[in-house]
Amino acid sequence: MIALYPGSFDPLTNGHLDIIERAARLFDRVIVAVLVNPDKRPLFTVEERIHQIEKGVQVFDNVEVEAYSGLTVDLARARGARVLIRGLRAVSDFEGELQMAQTNRLLAADIETLFLSTSTAYSYLSSSLVKGIVRAGGRVAPLVPPHVEADLRERLLGGEEGR
Amino acid sequence: MIALYPGSFDPLTNGHLDIIERAARLFDRVIVAVLVNPDKRPLFTVEERIHQIEKGVQVFDNVEVEAYSGLTVDLARARGARVLIRGLRAVSDFEGELQMAQTNRLLAADIETLFLSTSTAYSYLSSSLVKGIVRAGGRVAPLVPPHVEADLRERLLGGEEGR
Amino acid sequence: MIALYPGSFDPLTNGHLDIIERAARLFDRVIVAVLVNPDKRPLFTVEERIHQIEKGVQVFDNVEVEAYSGLTVDLARARGARVLIRGLRAVSDFEGELQMAQTNRLLAADIETLFLSTSTAYSYLSSSLVKGIVRAGGRVAPLVPPHVEADLRERLLGGEEGR
Amino acid sequence: MIALYPGSFDPLTNGHLDIIERAARLFDRVIVAVLVNPDKRPLFTVEERIHQIEKGVQVFDNVEVEAYSGLTVDLARARGARVLIRGLRAVSDFEGELQMAQTNRLLAADIETLFLSTSTAYSYLSSSLVKGIVRAGGRVAPLVPPHVEADLRERLLGGEEGR
Amino acid sequence: MIALYPGSFDPLTNGHLDIIERAARLFDRVIVAVLVNPDKRPLFTVEERIHQIEKGVQVFDNVEVEAYSGLTVDLARARGARVLIRGLRAVSDFEGELQMAQTNRLLAADIETLFLSTSTAYSYLSSSLVKGIVRAGGRVAPLVPPHVEADLRERLLGGEEGR
Amino acid sequence: MIALYPGSFDPLTNGHLDIIERAARLFDRVIVAVLVNPDKRPLFTVEERIHQIEKGVQVFDNVEVEAYSGLTVDLARARGARVLIRGLRAVSDFEGELQMAQTNRLLAADIETLFLSTSTAYSYLSSSLVKGIVRAGGRVAPLVPPHVEADLRERLLGGEEGR
Repeated sequence: MIALYPGSFDPLTNGHLDIIERAARLFDRVIVAVLVNPDKRPLFTVEERIHQIEKGVQVFDNVEVEAYSGLTVDLARARGARVLIRGLRAVSDFEGELQMAQTNRLLAADIETLFLSTSTAYSYLSSSLVKGIVRAGGRVAPLVPPHVEADLRERLLGGEEGR
Repeated sequence: MIALYPGSFDPLTNGHLDIIERAARLFDRVIVAVLVNPDKRPLFTVEERIHQIEKGVQVFDNVEVEAYSGLTVDLARARGARVLIRGLRAVSDFEGELQMAQTNRLLAADIETLFLSTSTAYSYLSSSLVKGIVRAGGRVAPLVPPHVEADLRERLLGGEEGR
Repeated sequence: MIALYPGSFDPLTNGHLDIIERAARLFDRVIVAVLVNPDKRPLFTVEERIHQIEKGVQVFDNVEVEAYSGLTVDLARARGARVLIRGLRAVSDFEGELQMAQTNRLLAADIETLFLSTSTAYSYLSSSLVKGIVRAGGRVAPLVPPHVEADLRERLLGGEEGR
Repeated sequence: MIALYPGSFDPLTNGHLDIIERAARLFDRVIVAVLVNPDKRPLFTVEERIHQIEKGVQVFDNVEVEAYSGLTVDLARARGARVLIRGLRAVSDFEGELQMAQTNRLLAADIETLFLSTSTAYSYLSSSLVKGIVRAGGRVAPLVPPHVEADLRERLLGGEEGR
Repeated sequence: MIALYPGSFDPLTNGHLDIIERAARLFDRVIVAVLVNPDKRPLFTVEERIHQIEKGVQVFDNVEVEAYSGLTVDLARARGARVLIRGLRAVSDFEGELQMAQTNRLLAADIETLFLSTSTAYSYLSSSLVKGIVRAGGRVAPLVPPHVEADLRERLLGGEEGR
Repeated sequence: MIALYPGSFDPLTNGHLDIIERAARLFDRVIVAVLVNPDKRPLFTVEERIHQIEKGVQVFDNVEVEAYSGLTVDLARARGARVLIRGLRAVSDFEGELQMAQTNRLLAADIETLFLSTSTAYSYLSSSLVKGIVRAGGRVAPLVPPHVEADLRERLLGGEEGR
């Protein structure tokens, strides 16, 4: 079974990696799909985000990364993926995620969304939180992989501090 | 009894129509009030939104549509409406709606907000969701009236695709 | 328009009275309907609860009280009530209330549930809370009418203390 | 992949059947596991519940039903199931479900809980709700399979009415 | 400043100990107050629960344990405690906790409830959960202190297995 | 004990003042810390917000006000504050607040966040709500101090109306 894990990943966090690792153990192939949303201004370009994820998942031999735009279910069909994977952290996530899942069922009744519960250690972790901490001068070592922390410091704090 | 149903309606969805239909059966007159919010950039102009709603509600002879700005309770008083109508979909709606209702009671103790529960078929439907699906290339036939889907495709996908 | 306000009212609180008062201003007649649930062991008998409510609502000349068992929508139809009234306090109420409203629509599509938001002063008030405070020896003067506080003290604290 | 779908199923509803049907399409085998909880007094015996489910799932050739007691993860391991399936309806479900999933990961790190979102048509449906409606004299035809409605009426309303 | 930490503690968990430890660092004295509720049937007697807590907190020299019945604010006043301490785990806790805090302010305006957020590692932990796992045959080593696990096994699984 | 109460205070509301007053009774010193967030465009400058707060808290002799940027825990350490104070209003607040508290514990394990529950009278009050009402032409007298209402009217409605 092929599973698609869609998201913005701006940037990749250890919470995302936790979901990817667990999906990689369950499914034959996992495609991490990075959404290109022309209406949002991400911190990292799609290429940078793909590079960050590829570096983070190289230990798994059944995980691929690619960019996409348009409907998630269209990409899933094109790749032969019958399931979408999403992590559930907390109640505030829940209704937005359920809305997406119900909408995707309406658009493609043959594709299922499967939710995994995020490990409690990451239950309050999000990409925005990580950006906020780095911007305010804090360290995010337990929350993102080392190469992502380096990228965040480089991008948000500029040359000297980023090194 | 006159009921006022305020909102942005950008655009009208079948969830809104469900609330209007049920209110029209209960109250003598229902006024659908389209908020003109100078701080937001809507997809459709007030005139377009009024036109979309008028087309959707022409089957009810006790429903009117108008634009307004300023306090909702001021419009209610000016129209002799003692109740405001709002739909409740899900928990994420709930607290924002309760905040509005409590605020309106503070501003006008003689006007009540009555909440109707949205039909389960529309429990995850919102104007933003509909815009997102059309923008990504999906069909929204079960979620909005046909003339609204045509408007959405025209506005978001441009000339040829909108036809 | 006739409105039915169903509940257990074991006992009546000032939160219930707030909803009754506001409903009495909006509707021609309000029927407070006390559910007889053979599976629960209430603190007060149905007769006692009816008496407590009648004493609390005697200032309104369009409010009646009666006991019922069976489906709420059956009583509504028998009384010609097209709306059920319910108060919404907080998120924890919300989903149970929505479940009841959706179920009642399924059982009787012609009867609507209208929700009023409870005044913030009563947003954490419930019949169980009041019983708990009296049982632990506290005063509940701002939460229930005086005659209900007397009944509670009589029932829960026994003879001398209840006087 | 083998999936285990644990629950009380007292009785089976169309919401359960919706989850079973979707799981049956995704996984090689689905085991519906009926929990025998000595601390609760169910309406139907384990044998009755298993019979109700077997009748409901006979159209799927990869679904089995069995009773169990003890830890769900122990049964999963004994059957070679690496995933537990649970339906998510609404926010009130969510935290209890997340608690169970986190606990099961603690007890068995190699077994994953996958959540499916219940169809909106069943988003407020539960076994308790169905029992309550039948007890109050209502019909539950769209909420449970016909043979379950018959069992409910027989059990809750007695001889004549149940026929 | 003296802080009172009220609860049922049936039994003490590592989540409770986490709150006690953090309160002991902040306040001059912490009184852990075990509620004797005649309406509930606890698994452990008050004496057993006090003994479990005393064993768990002996490392802190400013923590005491005692039993109480009646209003929590009455005990706080009798002990000179101006703050009540409560842990907040998840949304499902939140409204019940807020209700208690608002009620206590109503009963005693001079006593404040201060909430600490439970460590994420314990965010889904509760006394009931722990009892459920042991009853089903599972181990609860990371969730309760060793002496509490021994008591649980003795009480719930009987002689041989409890050793 | 020194307590830090961080926030945007754009503008100060009576809900903030309620928290400050209660904190001032509990702690030796309370520092109200106004966050300077270069990514947001506040209605009032930091100087204006500090001035509004200073005017509101002059009755308390143990409350100070200052601006800060960077990590809240860094300011707390620099000022010798071992606790951060936050108000909790409603469920929608709760998860964001818990996320902040968990993050701050990760960044500084020696600093605790203590939550106070906002008085029910202010349970739906926020700075954004107040700005919205004034912008729409309403009065906010019970929600903010008089000098803040004057500032709001001056800033949002311009010269004549603001007088």
